[in-house]
Amino acid sequence: MAAQQKTGVSLEDARRVIAAAEKKAQEIGQPMNIAVADEGANLVAFIRMPGAWIGSIDISQKKAFTSRAFDISTKDLAKHSQSGSQFFGIHASNDGKIMIFAGGIPLKSGDTVVGSIGVSGGSGDQDHAVAEAGVAAF
Amino acid sequence: MAAQQKTGVSLEDARRVIAAAEKKAQEIGQPMNIAVADEGANLVAFIRMPGAWIGSIDISQKKAFTSRAFDISTKDLAKHSQSGSQFFGIHASNDGKIMIFAGGIPLKSGDTVVGSIGVSGGSGDQDHAVAEAGVAAF
Amino acid sequence: MAAQQKTGVSLEDARRVIAAAEKKAQEIGQPMNIAVADEGANLVAFIRMPGAWIGSIDISQKKAFTSRAFDISTKDLAKHSQSGSQFFGIHASNDGKIMIFAGGIPLKSGDTVVGSIGVSGGSGDQDHAVAEAGVAAF
Amino acid sequence: MAAQQKTGVSLEDARRVIAAAEKKAQEIGQPMNIAVADEGANLVAFIRMPGAWIGSIDISQKKAFTSRAFDISTKDLAKHSQSGSQFFGIHASNDGKIMIFAGGIPLKSGDTVVGSIGVSGGSGDQDHAVAEAGVAAF
Repeated sequence: MAAQQKTGVSLEDARRVIAAAEKKAQEIGQPMNIAVADEGANLVAFIRMPGAWIGSIDISQKKAFTSRAFDISTKDLAKHSQSGSQFFGIHASNDGKIMIFAGGIPLKSGDTVVGSIGVSGGSGDQDHAVAEAGVAAF
Repeated sequence: MAAQQKTGVSLEDARRVIAAAEKKAQEIGQPMNIAVADEGANLVAFIRMPGAWIGSIDISQKKAFTSRAFDISTKDLAKHSQSGSQFFGIHASNDGKIMIFAGGIPLKSGDTVVGSIGVSGGSGDQDHAVAEAGVAAF
Repeated sequence: MAAQQKTGVSLEDARRVIAAAEKKAQEIGQPMNIAVADEGANLVAFIRMPGAWIGSIDISQKKAFTSRAFDISTKDLAKHSQSGSQFFGIHASNDGKIMIFAGGIPLKSGDTVVGSIGVSGGSGDQDHAVAEAGVAAF
Repeated sequence: MAAQQKTGVSLEDARRVIAAAEKKAQEIGQPMNIAVADEGANLVAFIRMPGAWIGSIDISQKKAFTSRAFDISTKDLAKHSQSGSQFFGIHASNDGKIMIFAGGIPLKSGDTVVGSIGVSGGSGDQDHAVAEAGVAAF
């Protein structure tokens, strides 16, 4: 079972990750926007499921950007970004591309972050759960 | 010939359109960014083929937006948008989302525009040809 | 004690400041983005250390801008910028260039601020410590 | 002389490229802003030489972005981006980050673009010449 180390996220990878996340979203009955970015934080693939929020097209892509930009889930980043916490104000950086609520998770190869997934269309818990399903398929 | 009228672009439609465009891009040997938007000019699906230009992630999506925003191919819009022509300056509108060079084409149901495809990653002629292949699959 | 008063930050100064900060970052084992700005709050030099967060390219430069823009460390500015404090909302000014968390420190000649350093890539405490090492070399 | 294939641009690479470009700028007597980006089009290092235009801090970084975003020199891109040409209007894409005048050149490893340099501070010919000196050191 010598798992091959990935150095990035291929289109094939991205489609597999999206398919797994889409399946999870269908199971929980909440249509989602799902985005996958690569090691350079650039978008590889995206889908909007039927009925998913239009405003979350942008958010899902920015959650993917954020998770790769700081190598952290946006759920965890959220904790540090509230008023009174060490990164409060980070959402004003990077020309408004930083999302500080749950739904973005890094994609790792071993300990190295090589890309990310961003999900938006439901509650924070739903978005995070769907993103996790995508991560598991990577 | 009771062709069913479409009123929009489903995710299934978008994937079929993208698959046809991707096949065309592979045939001409030029990796592309391919985006499909719906009747509201909002993104439905997107892929970046391996090796496709990073700067064209944005452009392909904006070509799709533009083609639905004005119900015209960006190749045709380009003719009216050069210095000295009637729409010169239109690229400064809509917060910079208007692309005025070839690669975006409306998706029609009968005579009605119900969505669009945007392709970016090669010459204007290549982008337009790949977009046409996508349109043919819709 | 005829210390020569500096009236600004030269490229040579900036490189020395960055080298000292880089050395500190290596010592604490956290790769950083490090930026130095001059008396006009304009960038003089910047480096991203291998593995440093992509999202912090922007933040380090904006921390440097902020520290010179208000002649204050971003750690101190943070105290006044939380919800309920006197400068809450300042991060929305200056086209999004204001960072209100630790990592930016003014560079002074005597009592006069003549430039600044901005560091981003770790916790607030780490960023501030690396910035202090840069200041000490100025 | 089995040249090792690079897969990106290290900080060490960037500093060497910048040093060579800086030397060229000194030779022609025109202070420059010099930026180097990596394979993801993200900034690795930047310097502003004493007396270089403040407005070119931004331009040099965006020329580097553009050259990697489209795998082309901005001098060549300029030819295709004038009114009447196939890419006219491309400067409105990517949130204003596309520069369509000389000074940006890709950094290649064999035939693969793995990064870029962007130079701004003089005439188009000067900027391009300084960028070429940087490329030669890569």
